[in-house]
Amino acid sequence: MNAVLDFIHANRDRFLDELKQFLAIPSISALPAHQEDVKRCADWAAAEMTRIGLQNVTLFPTPGHPVIYGDWLHAAGAPTILFYGHYDVQPVDPLELWESPPFDATIRDGEIYARGAADDKGQVFMHFKALEAHLSQNGKLPVNMKIILEGEEEVGSANLDDFVRAHKADLAADVVVISDSTMFDRGVPSMCYGLRGLCYFQIDVKSASTDLHSGMYGGAIANPGQVLAQMLSQIKDKSSRIKVPGFYDDVQPLTDEERAEFAKLPFNEKKYRKDLGVAKLFGEPGYSTLERVWARPTFEVNGLLSGFTGEGAKTVLPAQAMAKVSMRLVPNQDPVKISDLFDAYVKRIAPKTVDVTVTRMQGGKPWMCDPHNDFVQAAARAIEQGFGRRPVLVREGGSIPVVSTFQEELGLPSVLFGVGLPDENAHAPNEKLDLGNLHNGIIASALLYEEIGALAGGSTA
Amino acid sequence: MNAVLDFIHANRDRFLDELKQFLAIPSISALPAHQEDVKRCADWAAAEMTRIGLQNVTLFPTPGHPVIYGDWLHAAGAPTILFYGHYDVQPVDPLELWESPPFDATIRDGEIYARGAADDKGQVFMHFKALEAHLSQNGKLPVNMKIILEGEEEVGSANLDDFVRAHKADLAADVVVISDSTMFDRGVPSMCYGLRGLCYFQIDVKSASTDLHSGMYGGAIANPGQVLAQMLSQIKDKSSRIKVPGFYDDVQPLTDEERAEFAKLPFNEKKYRKDLGVAKLFGEPGYSTLERVWARPTFEVNGLLSGFTGEGAKTVLPAQAMAKVSMRLVPNQDPVKISDLFDAYVKRIAPKTVDVTVTRMQGGKPWMCDPHNDFVQAAARAIEQGFGRRPVLVREGGSIPVVSTFQEELGLPSVLFGVGLPDENAHAPNEKLDLGNLHNGIIASALLYEEIGALAGGSTA
Repeated sequence: MNAVLDFIHANRDRFLDELKQFLAIPSISALPAHQEDVKRCADWAAAEMTRIGLQNVTLFPTPGHPVIYGDWLHAAGAPTILFYGHYDVQPVDPLELWESPPFDATIRDGEIYARGAADDKGQVFMHFKALEAHLSQNGKLPVNMKIILEGEEEVGSANLDDFVRAHKADLAADVVVISDSTMFDRGVPSMCYGLRGLCYFQIDVKSASTDLHSGMYGGAIANPGQVLAQMLSQIKDKSSRIKVPGFYDDVQPLTDEERAEFAKLPFNEKKYRKDLGVAKLFGEPGYSTLERVWARPTFEVNGLLSGFTGEGAKTVLPAQAMAKVSMRLVPNQDPVKISDLFDAYVKRIAPKTVDVTVTRMQGGKPWMCDPHNDFVQAAARAIEQGFGRRPVLVREGGSIPVVSTFQEELGLPSVLFGVGLPDENAHAPNEKLDLGNLHNGIIASALLYEEIGALAGGSTA
Repeated sequence: MNAVLDFIHANRDRFLDELKQFLAIPSISALPAHQEDVKRCADWAAAEMTRIGLQNVTLFPTPGHPVIYGDWLHAAGAPTILFYGHYDVQPVDPLELWESPPFDATIRDGEIYARGAADDKGQVFMHFKALEAHLSQNGKLPVNMKIILEGEEEVGSANLDDFVRAHKADLAADVVVISDSTMFDRGVPSMCYGLRGLCYFQIDVKSASTDLHSGMYGGAIANPGQVLAQMLSQIKDKSSRIKVPGFYDDVQPLTDEERAEFAKLPFNEKKYRKDLGVAKLFGEPGYSTLERVWARPTFEVNGLLSGFTGEGAKTVLPAQAMAKVSMRLVPNQDPVKISDLFDAYVKRIAPKTVDVTVTRMQGGKPWMCDPHNDFVQAAARAIEQGFGRRPVLVREGGSIPVVSTFQEELGLPSVLFGVGLPDENAHAPNEKLDLGNLHNGIIASALLYEEIGALAGGSTA
């Protein structure tokens, strides 16, 4: 193992150069204009997987962007890890807020800045380098490994479930490993045992067939912007409670043990507020901030558009208004059931004076596992060695819908080992990744393969 | 007078060619990128005024776009008309909804389509041609004439009041004539005796210093889009009643006579709905549609913008949200007082979890005159001759703030004689002007100068 770790230390600079290449490809899955870039990024990742010694590297076409598969299956008798990551990234707007170009990775103060640095290219790359270290120094891995990387995580993984169902036998494993989440805080490595789910919608409100002069017609017909505002104000009340009937029915309450554990975490509200730039926090009464973002469902407005939004004033009565909205779900809320409830509620509160359409855009189930299982404990030992500190157990507010898919379709538990930091601007301008955490994460990943390799298993290899 | 009318008939085609030149200049006052175009348009109009025989044609610079002045003051003993119009136009977005380019005037089915065709270049041009007819055929006008054209009507006429105050003596006259309004309906010429006023604002709601991942932070801080929606829903209630305290205090109620006159007008609700493309009308309970748009104040959302508005889904918690909103005012509401009330109310309902700023963008007083005064009656006779039908008396929902300025600063009554039609898409894509109404309007304008010229007056010439 020393040779593996020495290799990781000795190649830090080269690793960074390679990561910059990965980050330079604008694989924005949400924007059709970047379709070729997404494909180019898949090609880059596949070539890198082959170069480091993975086998059977294949691009599987989907109706959207390809899924990349690769494996190394020569650790007879050892368990098999199914590693999942994604090579697509979020859009970069508003571009003017980036301090350096989002696809020209720039290092400042020990952080690498680029779209995808933390979410998720940097963390996928971390495993590439851990695998390279083992394969180049030992000619083998201590565990069997199957890797799938998708190109549609940022747009809802619409085609991944079908891919997993179509390749159940090929993907058989003992445990899933995913690195697409964050540590609790700088210097506080963590293991995540719960994720929120997601329902994402677009609401379109239309009235007249064309924009009108607000003087000539103002007062005579419904204003779509006003109607949209009134509808949104009826979805969540002022105290942050979601008013969709039945919305909370299946919410699994936090246990007393969880609340006690969360309360022990080194959460600094003042720093949290300062990092976000807000004077006051705000959320559901009766819950702490960590409880609100990890274990309580929410409704958020993700986007609004209506009428004239340029410089100056235009006295227009808009013909339409649009909102992008989403709900984060917690165990045991079901996104299909919640979508049905939401759809019915929005249609019920829609006035008859306008046309309202609700388009379902993304959905993903919430997920939770027993944090005391063998794989989580093995990962905890690896992280403790890599970062010099035993990881804390946390939940996360984000969604990785495939974790539920792996549980349901393949019957596999997941280990969520993320090295991002909460202030690294995933989904926002100036996304970045701490280079120290990247380095420690490569070491921890290399150790993780050993720890899992040493567990009983091997049913599938 | 026959020679004047013959000239107008004989030159119809040439007039159209000239109007197309005027309409070809994209004088969009709201957009800084078009600043040079606005100036070019002022130059075009000034040259045309000189060409038809007006004198002392001058461009007066302002902090914004220039005011054009020209006169003809040789009708000794006759009254003086101060004609007001504007040469700037509204923005054209959404451009993709135009069936022909907005600045390449196109004639289809007896209508000329272009931005500014109705509002207000076409109607200014109508007077140019009436003046040209008199001056070319008689070498004189039957009345004294002063003309001012501004380039900032569509952005709130910010510099016109100062111009009028600075040139009070030069602008002395007996009556103001403005053609920047619509007829009641096709074949129903009208005189307008009342206008609504305007207060226009931008509301900005800000929370975090950057857009955030809606999964990681959703539930912990206020969402500016949601807050904005909740605030807008508190400004106007679901029955369309404005909730700003004191808002209705100074509203002059409709008289029984006005309500009876409005009720007699040939208003076809079914056609109105069909023209607008709405299934249902909607407005303040207890008032007819005409009463709602002519004589009742309203609050409208003119624009909304927050977060991600592109194609697809982005799970962003926006850092800010913006609304452009405006109120139409009726006599005797004062825009400054209403702005103060609005500002205070918005700040009162703004939650402490966000920063809310209210920017005042435009304001204009409502206006009303006695429709039985001599000038209105003179105009009624001219319109009856030009259009073959006695005009009905109407109010308008739009705002022409300068009408109040002329009343207050110069002590002048105004005659509002418009030849636009309600469905001509002022401020919307596919703006147009009916060519028959333009032709009849040129005749009526030429007759109007005669009618007013025959009245007692001449105090200022």
